[in-house]
Amino acid sequence: MPQTIISSKTKEIIIGPDQPFVIIGERINPTNRKLLAEEMKAGNLERVQQDAMSQVNAGAQILDVNAGVPLADEPKILADSIKLIQSVSDVPLCIDSSIVEALKCGLEAYQGKALLNSVTGEEERLETVLPLVKQFGCAVIGISNDDSGISEDINVRFEVAKKIVERAMDHGIPKEDVLIDPLVMPIGAINDAGKQVLELIKKLQNELQVNTTCGASNLSFGLPNRHGLNTAFIAMAIANGMPCAITNPLEKVIMQSVRGANVVMGHDPECSDWIMNYREPREKRSRRKRRS
Amino acid sequence: MPQTIISSKTKEIIIGPDQPFVIIGERINPTNRKLLAEEMKAGNLERVQQDAMSQVNAGAQILDVNAGVPLADEPKILADSIKLIQSVSDVPLCIDSSIVEALKCGLEAYQGKALLNSVTGEEERLETVLPLVKQFGCAVIGISNDDSGISEDINVRFEVAKKIVERAMDHGIPKEDVLIDPLVMPIGAINDAGKQVLELIKKLQNELQVNTTCGASNLSFGLPNRHGLNTAFIAMAIANGMPCAITNPLEKVIMQSVRGANVVMGHDPECSDWIMNYREPREKRSRRKRRS
Repeated sequence: MPQTIISSKTKEIIIGPDQPFVIIGERINPTNRKLLAEEMKAGNLERVQQDAMSQVNAGAQILDVNAGVPLADEPKILADSIKLIQSVSDVPLCIDSSIVEALKCGLEAYQGKALLNSVTGEEERLETVLPLVKQFGCAVIGISNDDSGISEDINVRFEVAKKIVERAMDHGIPKEDVLIDPLVMPIGAINDAGKQVLELIKKLQNELQVNTTCGASNLSFGLPNRHGLNTAFIAMAIANGMPCAITNPLEKVIMQSVRGANVVMGHDPECSDWIMNYREPREKRSRRKRRS
Repeated sequence: MPQTIISSKTKEIIIGPDQPFVIIGERINPTNRKLLAEEMKAGNLERVQQDAMSQVNAGAQILDVNAGVPLADEPKILADSIKLIQSVSDVPLCIDSSIVEALKCGLEAYQGKALLNSVTGEEERLETVLPLVKQFGCAVIGISNDDSGISEDINVRFEVAKKIVERAMDHGIPKEDVLIDPLVMPIGAINDAGKQVLELIKKLQNELQVNTTCGASNLSFGLPNRHGLNTAFIAMAIANGMPCAITNPLEKVIMQSVRGANVVMGHDPECSDWIMNYREPREKRSRRKRRS
């Protein structure tokens, strides 16, 4: 079973199908968060710090940090956010940008072994991001699209993933440091999207021996009761061997589904995490007893 | 892919891994329902009728009917319950008893192709129940324990399942009319119970080519927030190919998990069932729009 290790200066997180599921908190991202975007641009990172703490308290083991504010100095904001979070927390980080220069600044600011988000199968991206991964000895998320776009055929997406992993190894990056994002498509548009991605997760694990991750909430795009659908999907993805996902730990139903799936997979010894989180308060228990 | 067909006089339900998941409603069962037990014993079946309708309205496609009241005339109560339900509903039924005479009376009263609950791998049970299954042309749930009890080793439970299926075929019962219950053990006592049963579901489907079913809520026995754990498990069981389960359709989170899993498996074309059940009322939608 592949094991990917991500760390801060003092804390190590192991990602793998035989480990408890790892939540990568998605909240520190100005996309669709107008207020956060304005504050980040103005150099006010108070909310970044709050979002870091609240996500860790809710159960995130890694935090994604994205500073993609249009027309702002993204590399500096990203580096400053990373330094700030690392000054108040030991949580390992996932450095997230579409701009290679920002990724580099983020890596320079970071203490530990980061997760880099992301490389794709696009030639230019491969040849600019992978040297950084090698230089800084970090891990990287490889997204299974390439210069021809995103294929609806999972065999094509598997081949793209294979190319990314092989290219990483050419650059001297160990295979276990590449996590593949098989790409979750909106099921409201593509009816087979769920079943296909579950198959692809399993195929990537069995045939390519790599860990997988995904943005779990993409699946429900455009549908009502998105959290309800996401919770079912995330448990099913875990049943198929997915060891981590980028999602929102503040959503209680998501965390419940992840914790439940950990119990079912045997990754919560004696169900102690489950019991700690969901034990009824003593008062409620005795009220219920009296009623029955 | 195996397909098991269960029917009433006018309605057919297909059970199979490439079909939408089938909920077998578990409520009509006097075990741990003191009031229902007393009423059944006194011949008052009003609550049986109510429970039938409420479960069908909540989404059950088959109803389990159990009349196991101690010191009562179980065969008669079971037959009367079946006749009553069939007089007000076209839902196919699962005839449930540990007493062979009651199963027989139930089958005599039933119109259509019933599901019989259950046979085990115990010699005496095999040789008394299977002839009934053959005689009435019904389907049967085979529970994977035998004269030596319930094994914690899934390979032993697989062999018991195999014995049940082979014996059924010896009696002239088609393989697709045997649904195997792999036995869900309480995970609070056996930490590997979840992972093992998921593996066994898959193995039964792939190697024995039979459909599976289970009492999904056994898993969470003794733990807090049982529904939370059951919802994760049921989605994971569906991801592994389980096509039906005996559970409580009145639990909204269970139904949400099943509907979500149907969407993910591609068994809800255009997500129309999901959208119908979870579309926000127009008023709430526009309120939300105004806020954002």
